[in-house]
Amino acid sequence: MARAWILKARPTGLPGNECFELADLPATALADGEVRVRNSWLSVDPYMRGRMNDVKSYVPPFALGEPMTGGAVGEVVESCADGLKPGDKVTHMLGWRDEAVGRAQEFTKLPSLGLPDQMFLGLLGITGLTAYFGLFDVAEAKAGDTVFVSAAAGAVGSAVVQFARLKGMTVIGSAGGPEKCALVRDLGADAVIDYKSGTPLLKQLMAAAPNGISVYFDNVGGDHLDAALAVANDHARFAMCGMIDSYNSGEPLMLRYAMRIVGFKLRLQGFIISEYLHRMSEFYAEVGPWAAAGKLHNLETVRDGLETMPDTFRALFSGGNTGKMLVRL
Amino acid sequence: MARAWILKARPTGLPGNECFELADLPATALADGEVRVRNSWLSVDPYMRGRMNDVKSYVPPFALGEPMTGGAVGEVVESCADGLKPGDKVTHMLGWRDEAVGRAQEFTKLPSLGLPDQMFLGLLGITGLTAYFGLFDVAEAKAGDTVFVSAAAGAVGSAVVQFARLKGMTVIGSAGGPEKCALVRDLGADAVIDYKSGTPLLKQLMAAAPNGISVYFDNVGGDHLDAALAVANDHARFAMCGMIDSYNSGEPLMLRYAMRIVGFKLRLQGFIISEYLHRMSEFYAEVGPWAAAGKLHNLETVRDGLETMPDTFRALFSGGNTGKMLVRL
Repeated sequence: MARAWILKARPTGLPGNECFELADLPATALADGEVRVRNSWLSVDPYMRGRMNDVKSYVPPFALGEPMTGGAVGEVVESCADGLKPGDKVTHMLGWRDEAVGRAQEFTKLPSLGLPDQMFLGLLGITGLTAYFGLFDVAEAKAGDTVFVSAAAGAVGSAVVQFARLKGMTVIGSAGGPEKCALVRDLGADAVIDYKSGTPLLKQLMAAAPNGISVYFDNVGGDHLDAALAVANDHARFAMCGMIDSYNSGEPLMLRYAMRIVGFKLRLQGFIISEYLHRMSEFYAEVGPWAAAGKLHNLETVRDGLETMPDTFRALFSGGNTGKMLVRL
Repeated sequence: MARAWILKARPTGLPGNECFELADLPATALADGEVRVRNSWLSVDPYMRGRMNDVKSYVPPFALGEPMTGGAVGEVVESCADGLKPGDKVTHMLGWRDEAVGRAQEFTKLPSLGLPDQMFLGLLGITGLTAYFGLFDVAEAKAGDTVFVSAAAGAVGSAVVQFARLKGMTVIGSAGGPEKCALVRDLGADAVIDYKSGTPLLKQLMAAAPNGISVYFDNVGGDHLDAALAVANDHARFAMCGMIDSYNSGEPLMLRYAMRIVGFKLRLQGFIISEYLHRMSEFYAEVGPWAAAGKLHNLETVRDGLETMPDTFRALFSGGNTGKMLVRL
């Protein structure tokens, strides 16, 4: 019997167990053009929190009483469609469940690069794509730039650190705690800031970037964004990717250095990776060879079993992951 | 005896009289290449507040014990320079004084358009330039856009309203009090918001822009910026020109809708008009004919006498002006 996580109630703050229900899915026969996929990896991402609210946003909210969705990798087990046959590995968006049924065009075959399947949810999937276009397109980062990236031990952040280093930038990453900071340094960051160390973030950033920063890749919002504003050089570009600090709190953002947006001609540009999906080939052309040559370190945190999904999701907001957060089925 | 306002002490909050001193300037003979100008109009601008702090910014701070500077218009009374002769009207940056002495290249002759001299400090000067490039270049506003502009009865704001209307945009302006709101409506705004009316700003803006806004021209920061974030459409562009709400308070900016920067892919771009001075001719080519054809309404608030400068400057922060704030000598 296939099962899926259903959104039972809309959360306030951090979603408790009362918001989720693991439900049996009705047995369905495949229609013409459909396939059945046994999921092996589920992606667990901060943006999903936004979809649990009933608020118009860049992706529609999850419907109450319906299975949730998200990135997943699996193997075709039954096919009524041309082009996909049992045994094919695919990536798709019918996550939060152990079995996915859908039209063939909802599934993308994994290329044969000899890389771990789950990497197509991380560095070679939406996560990597987000880091890549956020950094190079939105922030227009190039060799010589000094890049500050928050949540640098996270999925997107750890990709940003690596891509920026591979392109000749100076990279400052922030992460919480000595272990994560050591990981970020291992990824090649020139300087690492431990935002849990007790030393004020801004003080640490000023020490790490005595000549200021030209690019900020924001995954966090809050104090990180404010500190970045405080040390931004003339014409610095901010890629605004996420604000995990605010997803559950609902607290307003407080910025002491907002006026520097005007005086230093800063650019803050929000972006959503779905607008870059048509440029996937550019991404693979550059990042594929890096991956194949072993130049990328695929940081991931893996938990096991569909039952763990809600807990794993909540762990994102207390820094429970390094790199990509995944559930293995 | 020529006199100038000197910065005597750096202000905290709204600058009191103890910060300023009206001092006699030593009599100086002109050196070769210099001219002497009797000032007739002095520009009074919010950005000057930033120069009174001892903080690195886009313009260096005023030096303590030295005459302050700012936009001015005057008439050459003595010349040791080619190209400028007594009687020539000029605009320049040696304001806050009744007589300016400097090298000829610091002064620009007013074109003969039959327009009031002081207009070259307002709609046809830095003020107009700021509105023009902020709107059309920084925010990339074009016909069909819905533009929200704060401080719409102010110097830059009233220019933005008019330029936007002349280019076929829908314009929503905010101002404080029924008189200013009537003025903004007379300038051609499609809707006007009175931020002092007691009705929450955001509620008014949602009513005025039921389909959202695509451009925000920010002169204010604070609640205005937050309301603009709340109603911004996908890919809206914000020209960040000033944050007068924060110049004296030093309070942090509180934003409840900052997360929409990410989800709606907003662009917030700060700018400083000095970076556009080399494009002055583009500005004159479009705005000059508008002015000559009587299509522009030159809103201004005039006070008389050099002695009034500090008071006039402070009045900017309590909404004491409509349009360009000027002191006539």
